[in-house]
Amino acid sequence: MNKNILIIGAGLCGSLLALRMAQRGFEITLVEKRPDLRKVTQDAGRSINLALSDRGLRGLRLAGVEDEAKKLCIPMNGRMIHDTKGNTFLSPYSGRKDEYINSISRPGLNMLLLDEVEKMANVKIIFNHSCESVDLENASATFRNYNSKEETTISADAIFGTDGAGSAVRKNMFESHKFLFSFSQQWLSHGYKELEIPASENGEYRTYKNALHIWPRGEDMLIALPNLDGSFTVTLFLPYENSEYCFANLTSPEMVHEYFNKEFPDVVEMIPNLAEEFFGNPTGPLGTVKCSPWNAFGKLLLMGDAAHAIVPFYGQGMNASFEDVVVFDEILEKYASEEKINWNNLFKEYEALRKKDTDAIADLAVDNFHEMKEHTAMEIFQKKRKLETAFEAEFPEEYYSKYSLVTFKESITYSEAMKRGRAQDKAILNLLDDGKIKDEMSLKEKLELVKTETEAILHDDEVAFG
Amino acid sequence: MNKNILIIGAGLCGSLLALRMAQRGFEITLVEKRPDLRKVTQDAGRSINLALSDRGLRGLRLAGVEDEAKKLCIPMNGRMIHDTKGNTFLSPYSGRKDEYINSISRPGLNMLLLDEVEKMANVKIIFNHSCESVDLENASATFRNYNSKEETTISADAIFGTDGAGSAVRKNMFESHKFLFSFSQQWLSHGYKELEIPASENGEYRTYKNALHIWPRGEDMLIALPNLDGSFTVTLFLPYENSEYCFANLTSPEMVHEYFNKEFPDVVEMIPNLAEEFFGNPTGPLGTVKCSPWNAFGKLLLMGDAAHAIVPFYGQGMNASFEDVVVFDEILEKYASEEKINWNNLFKEYEALRKKDTDAIADLAVDNFHEMKEHTAMEIFQKKRKLETAFEAEFPEEYYSKYSLVTFKESITYSEAMKRGRAQDKAILNLLDDGKIKDEMSLKEKLELVKTETEAILHDDEVAFG
Repeated sequence: MNKNILIIGAGLCGSLLALRMAQRGFEITLVEKRPDLRKVTQDAGRSINLALSDRGLRGLRLAGVEDEAKKLCIPMNGRMIHDTKGNTFLSPYSGRKDEYINSISRPGLNMLLLDEVEKMANVKIIFNHSCESVDLENASATFRNYNSKEETTISADAIFGTDGAGSAVRKNMFESHKFLFSFSQQWLSHGYKELEIPASENGEYRTYKNALHIWPRGEDMLIALPNLDGSFTVTLFLPYENSEYCFANLTSPEMVHEYFNKEFPDVVEMIPNLAEEFFGNPTGPLGTVKCSPWNAFGKLLLMGDAAHAIVPFYGQGMNASFEDVVVFDEILEKYASEEKINWNNLFKEYEALRKKDTDAIADLAVDNFHEMKEHTAMEIFQKKRKLETAFEAEFPEEYYSKYSLVTFKESITYSEAMKRGRAQDKAILNLLDDGKIKDEMSLKEKLELVKTETEAILHDDEVAFG
Repeated sequence: MNKNILIIGAGLCGSLLALRMAQRGFEITLVEKRPDLRKVTQDAGRSINLALSDRGLRGLRLAGVEDEAKKLCIPMNGRMIHDTKGNTFLSPYSGRKDEYINSISRPGLNMLLLDEVEKMANVKIIFNHSCESVDLENASATFRNYNSKEETTISADAIFGTDGAGSAVRKNMFESHKFLFSFSQQWLSHGYKELEIPASENGEYRTYKNALHIWPRGEDMLIALPNLDGSFTVTLFLPYENSEYCFANLTSPEMVHEYFNKEFPDVVEMIPNLAEEFFGNPTGPLGTVKCSPWNAFGKLLLMGDAAHAIVPFYGQGMNASFEDVVVFDEILEKYASEEKINWNNLFKEYEALRKKDTDAIADLAVDNFHEMKEHTAMEIFQKKRKLETAFEAEFPEEYYSKYSLVTFKESITYSEAMKRGRAQDKAILNLLDDGKIKDEMSLKEKLELVKTETEAILHDDEVAFG
């Protein structure tokens, strides 16, 4: 038996992984740098939310917590686009009625998972211990107690690094120089800042509840997701510099109000303390991290954001991490019956299967950054969207847009979704541009044209690039 | 006047930059970690050579040293492909007679440049001083004397980091955390090992002199470039592991001989001390490094491999670095008349113009890795190559292959060469695959077909991806 497991990081991915592996009978130590978030006061008025969709729900289902999680969810059926005059229109995420995404509280979901983990007799959770170093070759890690400052070393048969985008475990791999570690961190030229639209005085939502609201403005963009308490968490995406409005030049309350009045007039009245929030809340960077190998010496494996941090524009960060657990669990199933698990082979098999997909969602998320802030306001993209929504409503089994493939079609991988989705997009945009999709054609004829063109594009790419 | 310049790294890029900026009247301190390579014995029998082509020659011309450099050059007119039976065929680099690449000794060229730099009264060269740290905000760097171990700090108005792929200057930027630094290092699954085909006993070349020899074998590959002394420098590219033959399992002289006898029989007789060289010489990794920004606080700029290390498969590493100096010099020309040069603006303008091109050559070099080891032996790629060579010979002003665009057409940028070259490749491969290029067509008709298809591909990509 080599089933003593150390999981570093008790965020969303680490908690779900701990829960699932505990259900499989592993002996688990789960160590978290921060205090137990169930016992500390959450920042008043801040309720950071995330988009939960089918791939993430599948992970929660695997661990038997889907129903509990759904109680925390607010369905969002589409993007509510706001123009500079305050006009809105709803662009559904799918033409199929049952396909929507959910707004969910990050701390709420994390607490739920920790509660479940704590019910398992074979898991020991340690909070307030930060990972100082990892002995990669010998599967042990040293932690510092935040309160006592004492150091503790924990050994295991296998270590999992689920300590997020800024992973200390990954840093140890980067700096080890004992093997070739491919690594990439890419920052967007934009940063983000969270603001809040509070509930109205009688506790109601100040704008439409069941949508992800977007104010696309070319170079900058505002989005808002609903919370259970009637508030919305708003996120501003803005260039750091070199733009008419950017973080570098929004330096006074007057300038912030000027900017919001000009670009987002309908928001101003919904955020009572706009300037206070703007200058009180931090500005965060937007980065993509990729690396390989994910394992070191067959002793340690990176998962979740530690292995593949992505920008938030596809709403897939948490979903990808939960899907990691699903994919890992499928492979673990094959190895679990072995007396002595060959972690090295298991880790390699996992990465061989999974990495192309986390690379794909990382690239798709950056693409969507540009689509959301630019394209959603451009006519040809609106035409394309309208056509795709009609295809999905009329031919629900025959057509999935790129967004639907990524978000709702968890039976195909992210990389397949990217390949097919991009080919479809290219087909539709070129057919529209060439005037080949004519008004007098039936929707079915249009669909067949798009399908044929998509296959031709996939074939040509296959011949040229293999 | 803010024209005191510190250049860290006196390799090919740093030496050429120092020479050019000295010619423009800057006061320059050029610091090199290694000893003066003109005064130390070169490793016996090792003559590392590189491919020098038009973009590199343009840089040497700018500094007035092209003619001297050409004396060190051996023209290579094409790729000499060797099959497993020892049969060969020459695949010309271009259908135009005057287009070829050159094999040149790296230390020979570096010595030439250092000799020229030393003639300039306004350059001070310091050898044996390794860069320990850089104060990015204040434009100063601390060096350690290799012999005395003493530390010296040198300040300047602007610093240039030309200290190569493993740049210490870049490491300081990565670790500073005072600005967002995008960084990527990507390793191939293959390593390389250098071997030597010595001159014959009467000093002659043991195989055809004026070619770059290639033994493509699918997963692995051998290449050889000629040296002035009659020898060839041979490089083996082989997977580290997970292959029938790989560095991990070639562990005895018998296995090395078995491998070479099977895959490269015509080489075995040309390398007298094969196993000795194989086990005596180091195995090197093959990596691509990209980063951004290249400048820190308007005080420091990375150039050459320090900013963009690439794999060697397009023979463009040195050429790209020399082209860096050309592009930088063009921008410097605009700023040079200012009493006080705005280095911050200059550095940003340089990166805005240049980075897309060094990114492109990095990607093209990885593509060519696959093309050289796989495609050169595949029929459809040989057909394509034959067609392109005919186009270039018959219509020298109308057609440039991707390889020619990158290697010989220095009037267009790497990124344009990549875009057009990839579209052409895709057009030809698909036209061949679809049987649309027919034997009965005239060469002119075939060319027109390829041109039309290429434009269609470029247009479709433009519509879909902008």
